[in-house]
Amino acid sequence: MTLRDRIGAFIDTQAFRNTILGVILFNAIILGLETSQTAIEVAGPLLVTLDGVCLAIFVVEILAKLFVQRAQFFRNGWNLFDFVIVGIALVPAAQGLAVLRALRILRLLRVVSVAPSLRRVIEGLINALPGMGSVFLLMTLIFYIGAVMATKLFGAAFPDWFGTLGRSAYSLFQIMTLESWSMGIVRPVMATYTYAWLFFVPFILLTTFIVLNLVVGLVVNSMQDAHHVEADQRTDDYRDEVLARLNDIEKLLKDTPRGKSG
Amino acid sequence: MTLRDRIGAFIDTQAFRNTILGVILFNAIILGLETSQTAIEVAGPLLVTLDGVCLAIFVVEILAKLFVQRAQFFRNGWNLFDFVIVGIALVPAAQGLAVLRALRILRLLRVVSVAPSLRRVIEGLINALPGMGSVFLLMTLIFYIGAVMATKLFGAAFPDWFGTLGRSAYSLFQIMTLESWSMGIVRPVMATYTYAWLFFVPFILLTTFIVLNLVVGLVVNSMQDAHHVEADQRTDDYRDEVLARLNDIEKLLKDTPRGKSG
Amino acid sequence: MTLRDRIGAFIDTQAFRNTILGVILFNAIILGLETSQTAIEVAGPLLVTLDGVCLAIFVVEILAKLFVQRAQFFRNGWNLFDFVIVGIALVPAAQGLAVLRALRILRLLRVVSVAPSLRRVIEGLINALPGMGSVFLLMTLIFYIGAVMATKLFGAAFPDWFGTLGRSAYSLFQIMTLESWSMGIVRPVMATYTYAWLFFVPFILLTTFIVLNLVVGLVVNSMQDAHHVEADQRTDDYRDEVLARLNDIEKLLKDTPRGKSG
Amino acid sequence: MTLRDRIGAFIDTQAFRNTILGVILFNAIILGLETSQTAIEVAGPLLVTLDGVCLAIFVVEILAKLFVQRAQFFRNGWNLFDFVIVGIALVPAAQGLAVLRALRILRLLRVVSVAPSLRRVIEGLINALPGMGSVFLLMTLIFYIGAVMATKLFGAAFPDWFGTLGRSAYSLFQIMTLESWSMGIVRPVMATYTYAWLFFVPFILLTTFIVLNLVVGLVVNSMQDAHHVEADQRTDDYRDEVLARLNDIEKLLKDTPRGKSG
Repeated sequence: MTLRDRIGAFIDTQAFRNTILGVILFNAIILGLETSQTAIEVAGPLLVTLDGVCLAIFVVEILAKLFVQRAQFFRNGWNLFDFVIVGIALVPAAQGLAVLRALRILRLLRVVSVAPSLRRVIEGLINALPGMGSVFLLMTLIFYIGAVMATKLFGAAFPDWFGTLGRSAYSLFQIMTLESWSMGIVRPVMATYTYAWLFFVPFILLTTFIVLNLVVGLVVNSMQDAHHVEADQRTDDYRDEVLARLNDIEKLLKDTPRGKSG
Repeated sequence: MTLRDRIGAFIDTQAFRNTILGVILFNAIILGLETSQTAIEVAGPLLVTLDGVCLAIFVVEILAKLFVQRAQFFRNGWNLFDFVIVGIALVPAAQGLAVLRALRILRLLRVVSVAPSLRRVIEGLINALPGMGSVFLLMTLIFYIGAVMATKLFGAAFPDWFGTLGRSAYSLFQIMTLESWSMGIVRPVMATYTYAWLFFVPFILLTTFIVLNLVVGLVVNSMQDAHHVEADQRTDDYRDEVLARLNDIEKLLKDTPRGKSG
Repeated sequence: MTLRDRIGAFIDTQAFRNTILGVILFNAIILGLETSQTAIEVAGPLLVTLDGVCLAIFVVEILAKLFVQRAQFFRNGWNLFDFVIVGIALVPAAQGLAVLRALRILRLLRVVSVAPSLRRVIEGLINALPGMGSVFLLMTLIFYIGAVMATKLFGAAFPDWFGTLGRSAYSLFQIMTLESWSMGIVRPVMATYTYAWLFFVPFILLTTFIVLNLVVGLVVNSMQDAHHVEADQRTDDYRDEVLARLNDIEKLLKDTPRGKSG
Repeated sequence: MTLRDRIGAFIDTQAFRNTILGVILFNAIILGLETSQTAIEVAGPLLVTLDGVCLAIFVVEILAKLFVQRAQFFRNGWNLFDFVIVGIALVPAAQGLAVLRALRILRLLRVVSVAPSLRRVIEGLINALPGMGSVFLLMTLIFYIGAVMATKLFGAAFPDWFGTLGRSAYSLFQIMTLESWSMGIVRPVMATYTYAWLFFVPFILLTTFIVLNLVVGLVVNSMQDAHHVEADQRTDDYRDEVLARLNDIEKLLKDTPRGKSG
């Protein structure tokens, strides 16, 4: 038994997995405490040290997995996920940028790759994505067209909301979520351009209708998947049984006359 | 017939149940009147007395049930519910804390344990919960991660919204419900941190998508339950019938040659 | 042929129905024009006269139907609907109260009782109501309990929002629709009562979850109805056919041996 | 091979379609850049020229299709769509009105007519429309009635929101989307007309309920369509098989006695 096999067997034990899960949760609590000014004053250096220890454990774990699985390691989506999450965590330790430091909490997402029930939810969400591809493409088209039109029509008078393509797209997203669309955006715009509602009301109706159809599509797809997996199995068994029986009966009938002629 | 049997028979009568239902509703009206300054000025002491009488009736009812059912009493969820609700009602009578006094109206929830149709709705809601467990866990993860990131990124500049983990979680919940997310929170934050939308827009898309999948899951589950309970019964009967007939026919066919050889 | 029969035949013609439909739409335009200051200045008396003519036609129509159908008239829900709508229209003509005058436009709802496709939509909506009964009852309970609690807890400090049971119920309805629940109501309340979110956030989660289950229930019910009406017919036909064939075959088999013994 | 045939074959090649798709996307980028002040300063005339070139290509493409397909051209909905979109694009080039110039970006919608997956989404959306006809009609009725009532009741005191039928309809649409309905509109109105909620709360409940039923209807329709297209094919095959077998067996049985009597 080589070292590689022994490490492979060790990282495959339930005890090892539970330990990693414990370290992930412990690390999440440490990172949560770091948001508290009081906690930093009382035990700042300790928190930083403990965070470093957790990170070190993750790095060792990944190195062990890499050593055992080698090129296979990167073929598994969840491994890649762990690799990137821990990789992100390593960068801020080196550079100390505020944004990258904030991203360290993403390590908690590793819980998903360890807990099977969460993994299934995430995989369910990811499976729902491909069916939404065309709708996303259509939404992108509509937002691009809407942003170009809004910028050209209202950009000069309302630069904060529609001054650039980006600002227009953001404002249109806000309007699509129906947040303050009328009192906050469209009524002020209508005070300058009376017919602005001719742009915004159809935009709301169209995007809402598309989102609605997306939801309907998701329901129908999920229902069919569920139907196929479960109910059809029993039906298929029954049907095979009926056809087999009919076969037997037909065979018996065809054999009988021959028996009599003998 | 012992006293226990006689009490048991008495609290099991429809008349007794209706009386209790009447007392619950009467009590709810009393507690409703207590919110009116005018009613308190006109008949304050009377309201307090009547409330005490109602509570006394509930206590006697529960004691009677306890006497009859003994340890069995606590095995029924609805009994426990009654016990806690009336127990809550007893505490404020002793201590007079404003919050505990306000909780007395929860006694009205006892209507649910008395009315079967409401009970069924509540049981339906509770049955839907287990299937949502993993999604709740995922949401907790996302909110914890989001709260830690928001506190680290925006806490210093916006202490009211993102100053602590708790405030960030509350603000993120508000943003998830889409209430004033843009005009109220994200636009002011973007005035300081231009790229704040890179955090908030994905957060909205992600949480909305998860809630959406939760709804889709509920629809699919309910549909399958309904399908299994109802439609399958008739289908099963039909299938049993067909297979039994095919059995008969096959048996007749197999018997026939033997009959001829006799 | 009596006068009653002749009137009965007349009001049953398509031409008569189309005329009434025309009068309803014409009347709706008149009432719409009455909202315009310019139209009233230009042709105010004319509009009032035309409105009176339309109303007179409706009254004559209803009297004719009453004369023909007598007591039967009131057994049809749509007739009762017409009767009440036109009755409402008669009252303001006599008294001139602003609110009752505004209700005259409800006459336009008579279009529903004339157009079959709209009638079906309305009947569909009404059919969905009974299944929602228990949920409505539960919602009433929750709103009453919530209103009593909110009034007792926050009424003194926020009389405009939670001063009375009615104001609390209205505010809770607003919160349930998620409109300005946080920035408008809960954040200001939390400035006084820090733990107010312990009341409002569960209230939002609970009511949203109940509404969600209502929607899920509607989908499942509609699906089952649609399934029963349509798909089952073909399935039933097929099953009857299979069982009849199996019967025939079994009978043939049982007859064959007897034929041989003859 | 005539010129018409050769042009017909040419515009039918995949290469030609891809080129047109490329021109559409290139044109969309040009129009997007035109919203940027910097881009116009740096390369304004170039952008205008390139836009003109793209438009020229579209015109030539449509003329070629017209030349090949003649009257057939206008029988295809997607051709008509292209014709109108490019037509709109031609008008602003001539007149230079700001609104018409903004409409030029609608050319990007031509991507839909070229990409089959988007075409299917759009056709799905359009197919969902007829089933919504009656509900739209009902909504129009409710909005007209609501607008007339709101204008008569609140128009004098709140001319900005309910001064005319159009403003009332817009405000009611805003209220239906639940945007600022209470804090923004109904609470201020209630400060003047205490019982205004008797109009607005039922309006919200009614319109929300109708929209909800629309969604339920869409789900049920989509589900049935999906069910019919897919699952029924296998079921039909199975049923045909069963009935054919039963036929065979019955025929065999009926033939057997005759064989014996020979």
